[in-house]
Amino acid sequence: MLLALLQANAAVLDIDANCAAIDAAARAASAAGAAVLVTPELFPVGYAPGRVRSGLDPAILPPLHERLAGIARRNSIGLVYSLPRVTAEGDWQISATLLDADGTALLGYGKVHLFGPDERAAFAPAAERPAVVDFHGMPTSMVICYDVEFPEAVRAAASGGAELLLVPTALAHGFDDVPQVLLRARALESQLTIAYANHSGVEDGCRFLGGSVIAGPDGKLLAAAGEEPELLFAEVDPEAARRERATVPYLDERRPDVYRSWDA
Amino acid sequence: MLLALLQANAAVLDIDANCAAIDAAARAASAAGAAVLVTPELFPVGYAPGRVRSGLDPAILPPLHERLAGIARRNSIGLVYSLPRVTAEGDWQISATLLDADGTALLGYGKVHLFGPDERAAFAPAAERPAVVDFHGMPTSMVICYDVEFPEAVRAAASGGAELLLVPTALAHGFDDVPQVLLRARALESQLTIAYANHSGVEDGCRFLGGSVIAGPDGKLLAAAGEEPELLFAEVDPEAARRERATVPYLDERRPDVYRSWDA
Repeated sequence: MLLALLQANAAVLDIDANCAAIDAAARAASAAGAAVLVTPELFPVGYAPGRVRSGLDPAILPPLHERLAGIARRNSIGLVYSLPRVTAEGDWQISATLLDADGTALLGYGKVHLFGPDERAAFAPAAERPAVVDFHGMPTSMVICYDVEFPEAVRAAASGGAELLLVPTALAHGFDDVPQVLLRARALESQLTIAYANHSGVEDGCRFLGGSVIAGPDGKLLAAAGEEPELLFAEVDPEAARRERATVPYLDERRPDVYRSWDA
Repeated sequence: MLLALLQANAAVLDIDANCAAIDAAARAASAAGAAVLVTPELFPVGYAPGRVRSGLDPAILPPLHERLAGIARRNSIGLVYSLPRVTAEGDWQISATLLDADGTALLGYGKVHLFGPDERAAFAPAAERPAVVDFHGMPTSMVICYDVEFPEAVRAAASGGAELLLVPTALAHGFDDVPQVLLRARALESQLTIAYANHSGVEDGCRFLGGSVIAGPDGKLLAAAGEEPELLFAEVDPEAARRERATVPYLDERRPDVYRSWDA
């Protein structure tokens, strides 16, 4: 299965421009044969927690989901996008959605680990375990940005059966060890493929790293972007996770009962 | 605080030779000003699970502990060594001991994650949480070899307060990503210093990687050995863990209650 990642600069609160960028990337990724396009955290609205929280009318979210479903459908490609969501209790959270190529939502997720004071001021953390669905024959899950830096989050996805983890992110410049060390370790220790799609350039005063990566279940990088906008591709072997897990069975050799006893 | 790691080739069941190597390394490390010498997994007896299990008389263990305490005392240096131990129930486990420079045992640990069929045939897994003691002002803990590949084990040490983790290991050739990727990630994600001391050369038919490392709480390598025997040193800044934890508070921003709810 061919994965595509959009690394790009979003325009804060310019939804038309950001959707046009996603549409163009979806068209190019589909033409290249990709099964899915993964886009960065909050890309359709821009990564600007405070301005999004104060300037975005939540009434625009349902039609925006429809519009993104149209992009998937029109380009016949799966799509991962990230948007704010408002819970029944009125909490704003950061969410991600996986659509299939018909625009049907297969999977939703809410960010559990919020990063830094700006994000915490604008959003509330979710508490849901990363769920797993079948996508083109691969058990697939999602987490968002800072979540992936916590081994606990990726373990939860992997122990739920995930062999592919799709991660919209918004990682600042200077944090190169996140994609180059932590992401590789997450992929290796839980033996799954991780696709990590970041912003590039400056949004709302924050300079982003770029540096999007796709890591395989042996911890090797299948693809890595530089700082500039890029459509990044990697071919994923759907047997690779099972092969690695048969060689060094990390997931089976965890000792969850022992860990629980430590916790008590 | 200066750390020293012994990377060396042990002679299987030649305890005199192995103790002489530890003694020589302790002398050199002490002369260089090191506070502690970390030696590889099962080094005093050699890494050969089956031969050690069948050929070692457990009656020699108490005097061997005394002998190793004498090496620490004589050289005025802390010492980490790893030996088999036999529990009250008659289980053989793989243990590690931290001695202070007087030869007093400060900390013991039993390996929780056994690696591969040979180790499992010879030893039983322990189940103890890595404990934490003060060593030269740094909260210090230990795990052994395969344990450190599991984020759960290092998290337990770090959430117990450890800022320094001493790890005797016996890692085979070909597993370079363990020290180069996983160890750096463990250090970075839990923001502690990790000293990982491996065998080199061949013991009992197994070719070891060497590749011992000391990683700082920012995930950077402070020192890294090649394949050959080496006495590896790194100066550890006792403030570094606290500084990193103040910058990106990974440990405080875990969500243990949420993880427990996922587990239920």
